[in-house]
Amino acid sequence: MATQSWEQASADPTYRAAVVDLLGALAYGELAAFERLAEDAKLAPSLADKAELASMASAEFHHFEKLREQLARIDEDPTAAMEPFAAALDDFHRLTAPSDWLEGLIKAYVGDSIASDFYREVASRLDADTRALVLSVLDDTGHSSFAVEKVRAAIEADPRVGGRLALWARRLMGEALSQAQRVVADRDALSTMLVGGVADGFDLAEVGKMFSRITEAHTKRMAALGLAA
Amino acid sequence: MATQSWEQASADPTYRAAVVDLLGALAYGELAAFERLAEDAKLAPSLADKAELASMASAEFHHFEKLREQLARIDEDPTAAMEPFAAALDDFHRLTAPSDWLEGLIKAYVGDSIASDFYREVASRLDADTRALVLSVLDDTGHSSFAVEKVRAAIEADPRVGGRLALWARRLMGEALSQAQRVVADRDALSTMLVGGVADGFDLAEVGKMFSRITEAHTKRMAALGLAA
Repeated sequence: MATQSWEQASADPTYRAAVVDLLGALAYGELAAFERLAEDAKLAPSLADKAELASMASAEFHHFEKLREQLARIDEDPTAAMEPFAAALDDFHRLTAPSDWLEGLIKAYVGDSIASDFYREVASRLDADTRALVLSVLDDTGHSSFAVEKVRAAIEADPRVGGRLALWARRLMGEALSQAQRVVADRDALSTMLVGGVADGFDLAEVGKMFSRITEAHTKRMAALGLAA
Repeated sequence: MATQSWEQASADPTYRAAVVDLLGALAYGELAAFERLAEDAKLAPSLADKAELASMASAEFHHFEKLREQLARIDEDPTAAMEPFAAALDDFHRLTAPSDWLEGLIKAYVGDSIASDFYREVASRLDADTRALVLSVLDDTGHSSFAVEKVRAAIEADPRVGGRLALWARRLMGEALSQAQRVVADRDALSTMLVGGVADGFDLAEVGKMFSRITEAHTKRMAALGLAA
């Protein structure tokens, strides 16, 4: 797959459907992230902090634009491609609305990191053209590094904060996994591709392994941040 | 003034203070606009509409970045420069939170248009360097034209909508003027510059005339949209 162009690979209708699903899910994910980060920016204790989160929101919006353009380029209606994923992503954000600035920072950092992990996992399973797009979006992440420094400083100032934020980070990951499971159960073509290409057939255990790898990376990041996950 | 560089012009401390005020007010205005547009995007009836408003929000954020960079370039703390204007702009947005998508569209269009008018008015009073920056931000506006088409279609479909939106547009302009008056009363150096350069001295009648020109342009735009203002 990795050596094929989109034109070659998309001749297979199952692969094509999987990529349309993937681009639609990523596009809605970026648009929803834009919306929530812009909203969470209101929790910022200072104008400079607000600008940092707003800058991250703006970066997510540009990712959305890239993904939407790609959908249009392959003659798919971006809205139709995004809609199957709206409920799961909206529910995730509804259930994880941060109650203060530190929770907002953790969410921004966790969300950004999980997205990077997922983009990296999925890139290897894609045709060369789609992979180039996904990697170009990935290259432009990392806007959340400012969050790490601030969270670490808050925990140093008051170690009890760490316990609360560790619980919060665990809840974020739990809700993310639960919504991801919902998408997996719902979208066969996408799930099959995610676990190793259409040709290999669908294997739920493989999806589970991918989720495990992402959860493990999350746990390590939280530990590095001083949060026992 | 128009032929001077920033280096020459800023030797006058009153002019310098006025420009710092202006850049601070514009920067906070763009950041607040970003925040509110991102929030109002939630009212969108479709994903495509939401993306349009989000795109406008993202453009406002880039204006904010340009203005903040300029403040840093002239060795001013962007946060300190913005703070005197936060209350007036926050109050404006708090008092004009749209209650539905059409009100949100009108607000986006009116806000964008008034900002363009104001940037154009003020550009002629600035040194060459500051003017170039203000014009580069101005060049990048006009993201609101999509709103015109949608509002017009809504009024055609149900002419009664026009009456409600005309009242709304009038209220937007009223709140904008009332907050602008508050800023004018508060910031002498800025106000003096706005009405014709520091050398001419402060003249409240001139400020009134500038507001009248902007209101008149607003009234014409609303009439063109089918809203008697």
